[in-house]
Amino acid sequence: MTFTTNGAEIEQWDVFELTLHGSAEGNPFLDVALSARFSYKHRTIEVDGFYDGDGVYRVRFMPDTPGPWRFSTRSNREELSGHEGGFSCVPASAGNHGPVRVVNTFHFAYADGTPYKQIGTTCYVWNHQGDELEEQTLATLRASPFNKLRMCVFPKHYAYNENEPESYPFPCLSRGSSKWTGSWKVDVQEGWSFDFTRFEPDFFRHLELRVGQLRDLGIEADLILFHPYDRWGFATMDAATDDRYLRYVVARLAAYRNVWWSLANEFDFMHTKHMADWDRFFRIVQESDPYGHLRSIHNGHVLYDHSKPWVTHQSIQRHDLSQVKLWREQHGKPVVVDECCYEGNIWQFWGNISAQELVHRFWLGTANGGYVGHGETYEHPDDILWWAKGGVLHGESAPRLAFLRRILEEGPAEGLEPAAEVARWLPVAGKHHTYYLAYFGVHQPAQVSFSLPDGERYRAEIIDTWAMTVTPVAEPVVGGTPLRLPGRPYHAVVLRRIL
Amino acid sequence: MTFTTNGAEIEQWDVFELTLHGSAEGNPFLDVALSARFSYKHRTIEVDGFYDGDGVYRVRFMPDTPGPWRFSTRSNREELSGHEGGFSCVPASAGNHGPVRVVNTFHFAYADGTPYKQIGTTCYVWNHQGDELEEQTLATLRASPFNKLRMCVFPKHYAYNENEPESYPFPCLSRGSSKWTGSWKVDVQEGWSFDFTRFEPDFFRHLELRVGQLRDLGIEADLILFHPYDRWGFATMDAATDDRYLRYVVARLAAYRNVWWSLANEFDFMHTKHMADWDRFFRIVQESDPYGHLRSIHNGHVLYDHSKPWVTHQSIQRHDLSQVKLWREQHGKPVVVDECCYEGNIWQFWGNISAQELVHRFWLGTANGGYVGHGETYEHPDDILWWAKGGVLHGESAPRLAFLRRILEEGPAEGLEPAAEVARWLPVAGKHHTYYLAYFGVHQPAQVSFSLPDGERYRAEIIDTWAMTVTPVAEPVVGGTPLRLPGRPYHAVVLRRIL
Repeated sequence: MTFTTNGAEIEQWDVFELTLHGSAEGNPFLDVALSARFSYKHRTIEVDGFYDGDGVYRVRFMPDTPGPWRFSTRSNREELSGHEGGFSCVPASAGNHGPVRVVNTFHFAYADGTPYKQIGTTCYVWNHQGDELEEQTLATLRASPFNKLRMCVFPKHYAYNENEPESYPFPCLSRGSSKWTGSWKVDVQEGWSFDFTRFEPDFFRHLELRVGQLRDLGIEADLILFHPYDRWGFATMDAATDDRYLRYVVARLAAYRNVWWSLANEFDFMHTKHMADWDRFFRIVQESDPYGHLRSIHNGHVLYDHSKPWVTHQSIQRHDLSQVKLWREQHGKPVVVDECCYEGNIWQFWGNISAQELVHRFWLGTANGGYVGHGETYEHPDDILWWAKGGVLHGESAPRLAFLRRILEEGPAEGLEPAAEVARWLPVAGKHHTYYLAYFGVHQPAQVSFSLPDGERYRAEIIDTWAMTVTPVAEPVVGGTPLRLPGRPYHAVVLRRIL
Repeated sequence: MTFTTNGAEIEQWDVFELTLHGSAEGNPFLDVALSARFSYKHRTIEVDGFYDGDGVYRVRFMPDTPGPWRFSTRSNREELSGHEGGFSCVPASAGNHGPVRVVNTFHFAYADGTPYKQIGTTCYVWNHQGDELEEQTLATLRASPFNKLRMCVFPKHYAYNENEPESYPFPCLSRGSSKWTGSWKVDVQEGWSFDFTRFEPDFFRHLELRVGQLRDLGIEADLILFHPYDRWGFATMDAATDDRYLRYVVARLAAYRNVWWSLANEFDFMHTKHMADWDRFFRIVQESDPYGHLRSIHNGHVLYDHSKPWVTHQSIQRHDLSQVKLWREQHGKPVVVDECCYEGNIWQFWGNISAQELVHRFWLGTANGGYVGHGETYEHPDDILWWAKGGVLHGESAPRLAFLRRILEEGPAEGLEPAAEVARWLPVAGKHHTYYLAYFGVHQPAQVSFSLPDGERYRAEIIDTWAMTVTPVAEPVVGGTPLRLPGRPYHAVVLRRIL
C-alpha cells in the first residue's frame, strides 16, 4: 500500500489507497462518514472509506480497467470532503489475474479469463499466531498446491485453541479466561470486555498484511466474517455492532483482489443469530463491496439455502461427496465442499480421516462436477494443528492434491460437467465431445468401456491417484472399446478427444 | 434320506421321510393331493406331500421335539390315504442346532439357542454347474467362514452365465439360445419350451442333495425362489404355475433345517410380477411351511416393505452400510445386507470393489447392528465367478471375514445393539453394560475415549480388521479414559466389562 496521488500509476486489480488527515476527536469510527467516487469515463463507482486511527482516514479502491481514473471524496467532515485527484491504471503484470468470479454456472475463473481450479485448504486462525508461526505457514503455503485458504477475521476459542491472539479487533477493556471448556456453543468466558464502538486499526493492518501475502502467493483468502467458537464476545455482539463491523471489514479489505467473503463458519451453531441476521449480513456485504467478490456461508449441520440471490457459490460441509451433483442441480451454483473431514489423527471424528480417504473425497467431488477443501489435524505437542494455526504439513495428501490440481489445469478451461451418459454408475465429469474424467474410487475393475459419442476417438490415460502416475494407453479409444485397467482401487481414467 | 417306518429313530430337526407307492397314471403333479398329520402328544402338524415320479409319493417332516411321534396320511387317492405309523425322535447330535430363528428382534439363533452370527456369501447357481465344480465349491465352503449361502432354485441367464444347467425343473420340450444379450430385463429366448404342468424330480433331488450337503457343513441355504435373469421362461410363468411351483418346493425342502426362503433376488427387476404377486407368494410359503423357516425378499433398486407381517428379516441390497441402523428402526427386524457390492474386478460396478472395501462394509454393517453378505467376482477365463458358479475363492476378504466371525462369536450371544451413547459420531454396537464394539473405518484417531456408564470398568482390545490382529490394552478402561490407538484406518475397539 502506498499513498498515491494525482499522476500516480496503479496496476489493474491492485489496491489504490487515498490517505486523508483529519481530526481524531470524539469517536471517528462512529461519527465520521467518508466515501469516494471513482470514475473511468462515464462509469462511476462509490467506495466507502474508513478511519485508520490517529486522525488518518483512508479510501481503498481496486480499479478493474486500465486507463485514467478520477476520484472525489465526500464526508460529513469538511476537511475530508471535496478532495479530488486521479491516477493512471496500468495493465496487470504477470501473475495478477484479478479477482475470481463464477463462470459457466458451476465453475470459477479469474477476471482476466484464466481458469481457476479450486484446491482449498483451511487454517482458520493462522493469522492470530504471531510472526514466527505465521511466516512458517506462508513458507508452507508457497510450496503447497493450495490456491484458496479459509481463514477467520476473529480469533478462535476451541479445543487446541486456548492461546490468546496477538491483538483484538476492538480495544480490550478487561481480560478473562482462555480455557476451552469443551462446549461448542457460543460461550463467552467471564471477564472479557471490549469497547465495541471502536476498532483496533493495528489488528486490521495485520490482517491486511496476511491477506496481501496470500495474494502474492496466488492464494485466495476465503475470509470468514463470523464463527461460533468464541470466548471474547465477538460471536454475540448486537446487531448494530455486527453491521458496523461488516462495513468496516469490507471498506478495508474489498480492494484486495483475492478476498472471498464467507459470512460464517458453521453459521447454524451460532444460536444467537437467526436466519434474518444472515440474510441481512449478506445484503450489507453485497451493498458495501463495489467489486462483487464471491460470497457464501458455510454450514455445520443445516445447509443454508444457497439459492438465495446474494450467494455466489455453495460452501458446504458434508462427508458424502457423491451428493455434489445433487447440490449443483438444486441451486445452479458452483459447489465447494470446504469441509469433508480433515486428514489427521485427533480424536474428533471430523479430524481423523486417512490421507487416502481425503484424496479419494477430492477425486469423488471433482468427478461429480464440484470442488473440495483440505485440512489437516494431526496431534501436536504444542497444539499446532494446520487446520487452525498453520505451521507445517505432516500428512500425505498435499502432494496428491498438487497432482490433482495439475490434472485439472491440463483439462478443459471451462470446468468439468457431470457426464453420466458416458459411463453408467461411475462418477464421470468432463466437457462433452472433448474430455472426460472418470473416477473409480474403491472400485477396481480390470476393464472398463465408455459410451463415447459415435465416430469420436479419444486418447486415454490411466491415473493412479495415490501413486500419482499417469499411464497413456497406446491405442485410441472409441465407444465400447474395452480398456484394460490395473484392477486396483483409487484409479481414474482421463479421455481426451483426438481431433 | 431313508425310508422310515414304525419304530424307526429320527434325529430332532432331521428329515423324516415317508415313502408311498401309488399310480403314475395321468398327471399326479396336478391330480394327486397328499398330506400327513404328524402328532406329538396333543400337538398336530399338517404337512404336504409331493409326487417324486415313477409312482413314488413322499411326505417329509422335520420333528422339533424328541419323543414318540405318530402320523397318518390323507389323499384324494385311496391307495395313498389312511397310512399310519410312528417314529421316535431322538435328541439332536453335536453340530445339529436346528433351524435358525429370529431372536432379540434384530438377531438370529438356532432353535437349540446357539447364537447364529450370519457371515453370508453368494453363489447364485453353483448347484447348476455339474458335479466336478459343485464338489469344488463344497470343498471351498468347508474351509471358508461362511455360514449362509444365497442360491437360486432356477438356473441363471446373465453375463458370465451362458452355460446350460445339467437339468431343468420342468420337462424340456424344445431348446433355444443360451446367449446373454446384455439386457437385464426378463427376456425369454426364442425356442425354449417346457411342460409347466409337470416337475422334473431329478432336478429337485439334485437340489436337495446340495442343500443337504450345505446343512452338513453348517451352512444355511438362503433359497432364492424367483429371479429375473432368465432365458427359459421360469421368470414369466403364469400365476397358477408360480403357486404350484412354490408349494412343490416347500413340500420337498421345508423339512431341511437349514433352508431360508428368499422369495426373490431383485424382485423389482421382474417386470411381469406385481406387488400383489409377491405378497401372495409370501403367504403361500408361510401357509405351506409348517416350520416357519426364515422368509425375506431381496431388492434391486426398490426396497420391499419389510414391515409386512410375513417378512421375518430384511434382505437388502444397498451400498451404504451406515443406513443399517435406520432400517432396523424402520421395521424392527434383523437387517441382512446380502449385497453391498462384491469383491472383484469385473467391469460391472456392483462386482469390483476391493477386498478392503468389502471387509470395511462388513464391519460398518456389524457396528450398526446388522449383518452383511459376501460375494466374489474376479474375471475368469472360463467365466467361473464365485458369485454365480462357486469354484474357488481368489480374493482377500474371506480370511478377514473369518476373523470377524470369530470376534462376533466371542461377543454377546444376544447380538449387537447400536450403542451411540458410548461414542458420539462413531458406529458402536454392543450389549449395554457388558460389551461394546466400535469401528473406525476410514477414520484413524490416535486416541479415543468412550462415554462408559459410571463406575464400570472395561478391558479393551484394539483390532486391526485387515491385519487381523487383536492387541489387548493393559490398563482397564473407564468412561473418559483416553485410549491410545495406532492412528491408522480400518481399526476397531472391543470393550468387555470387568466384573
